[in-house]
Amino acid sequence: MIEDVKRALRSVVMITVTPFDAAGEVDDAAYRSVLRRTLDAGIDVVTPNGNTSEFYSLTAAERDHALALTVEEARDRALVVAGVGYDVRTAVESARTAADTGAQAIMVHQPVHPYLSAEGWVDYHRAVADAVPDLGVVCYLRSPHIPAGALAELARIAPNFVGVKHAVPDPVAFGQAVAVVEDAAGADRLVWICGLAETWAPFFWPVGAEGFTSGLANVTPELSLQLLAALRDGRRPDAMSLWRKLKPFEDLRAAKGSADNVTVVKEALAQLDLCQRTVRPPISELSTVGWAEVAAWLKSVG
Amino acid sequence: MIEDVKRALRSVVMITVTPFDAAGEVDDAAYRSVLRRTLDAGIDVVTPNGNTSEFYSLTAAERDHALALTVEEARDRALVVAGVGYDVRTAVESARTAADTGAQAIMVHQPVHPYLSAEGWVDYHRAVADAVPDLGVVCYLRSPHIPAGALAELARIAPNFVGVKHAVPDPVAFGQAVAVVEDAAGADRLVWICGLAETWAPFFWPVGAEGFTSGLANVTPELSLQLLAALRDGRRPDAMSLWRKLKPFEDLRAAKGSADNVTVVKEALAQLDLCQRTVRPPISELSTVGWAEVAAWLKSVG
Repeated sequence: MIEDVKRALRSVVMITVTPFDAAGEVDDAAYRSVLRRTLDAGIDVVTPNGNTSEFYSLTAAERDHALALTVEEARDRALVVAGVGYDVRTAVESARTAADTGAQAIMVHQPVHPYLSAEGWVDYHRAVADAVPDLGVVCYLRSPHIPAGALAELARIAPNFVGVKHAVPDPVAFGQAVAVVEDAAGADRLVWICGLAETWAPFFWPVGAEGFTSGLANVTPELSLQLLAALRDGRRPDAMSLWRKLKPFEDLRAAKGSADNVTVVKEALAQLDLCQRTVRPPISELSTVGWAEVAAWLKSVG
Repeated sequence: MIEDVKRALRSVVMITVTPFDAAGEVDDAAYRSVLRRTLDAGIDVVTPNGNTSEFYSLTAAERDHALALTVEEARDRALVVAGVGYDVRTAVESARTAADTGAQAIMVHQPVHPYLSAEGWVDYHRAVADAVPDLGVVCYLRSPHIPAGALAELARIAPNFVGVKHAVPDPVAFGQAVAVVEDAAGADRLVWICGLAETWAPFFWPVGAEGFTSGLANVTPELSLQLLAALRDGRRPDAMSLWRKLKPFEDLRAAKGSADNVTVVKEALAQLDLCQRTVRPPISELSTVGWAEVAAWLKSVG
């Protein structure tokens, strides 16, 4: 089971958007249809309750609901990696809910606590992993302050720790982390996923990445899957051509300290008539300039 | 009432620690005695459920409990500014609880959502402020991406928005924010608090700070109050002498990406026999080297 999860993780890990209706409530029908369209296109790993899902704007009940919708749609079609987080007790509870709901793995958000120690980070993840021994556990690394040794230690003590979603924009540090864990725990102990999506995937690939996360895949899943295939096969010109095609969209998402990271994805989906553009504070809808930029990009990729 | 809150905020805003017993549960007796000692020393503004309180390690019930303990101890002795946060619905609910419990103000944590837009930031804070019209509202600014115009806009639409806890380590940007809001809303519209404690307070003072946050005040409240008095009176040599005395403690807290920010405070309190040194993941206790460093600092200040 755990080995199956590891095999499945080597792919495009799509973070689901959480469509809202015009009143700001979770739109179940749109959630299902956006997701189903991506599964039909070949997406085979999905993370509900990730950052693209507006995780931090959802209540606990809404997070459980989004997970249930995802499992219902994706069962037998994709690996479901449920996002869990907050304080350690809440994360443990959410992990158990993920197991009960039928997810095969969890993605542990970096703790929101503004202070993290290496030992505390390991203790936090071990507590969550121990609560769901039959689920694969992926950690989400955003801080440059968690040393590779902490990953190696967690790999040593938590057998169901299967992968790292590495989201520090520093490919050298990423390669170093892969090397340290490989030396300590063996080459196949963990699956390494570029947590910075299409823009960074080509730079994480040479040193061990075998998958990448994607919010863009909600919009153009086939393009993300084409990039995965090009990277897997080592077809550099194809990968570079796709990278150049996708990067303008990712750049719109990254501008202004990533203020519009989710907003741009929902705007594109709204223009494709797949869901409302509604987002919740502390993010907000695009200006008409932003609409035009998204429209121009959609036109550019056909 | 709101004007009283503004007057009171111009002080040392102590963030309470949340002592745990050896089993990791909130230690009510220690919570009360640590707090009472600081009130006896003259601390007159306290924030339960701030970052020094390990806000992000507490469950909702524990946060409510810590607030209730604080109000019981501090009633009629200090302004209680309750920390609230998470998604907007949770923050609104916590704000209402703060009002019901008897706090006079709330401190809104920067939304944990990794993406913030200026407009979304305003909408988030307005929703929380509108829920508690009789309470003063202080925002907590940690991101450099929230423009001063957003503060001015919130000041325009939320009459109970009374202060800014500014925690971006950039005194020039701080001064610019003060200037923009003063031009837009008047010189006394908001109270400006240095949210980076004793280390940064002297640098925020020349451009408008009238108070500063403090975790250190849990340990040596009289020293933080002395620094406040020196800054207020413009006694530069005294302020500099205190700054040099306090900074080594703050440096221990700031090392390794602030991994030990709370841990060092609890270690000092443990050495003073005021509470256990227990912290919760994702942070961890100090090594024996750290114990010795804290002991040396305590000795240095007598």
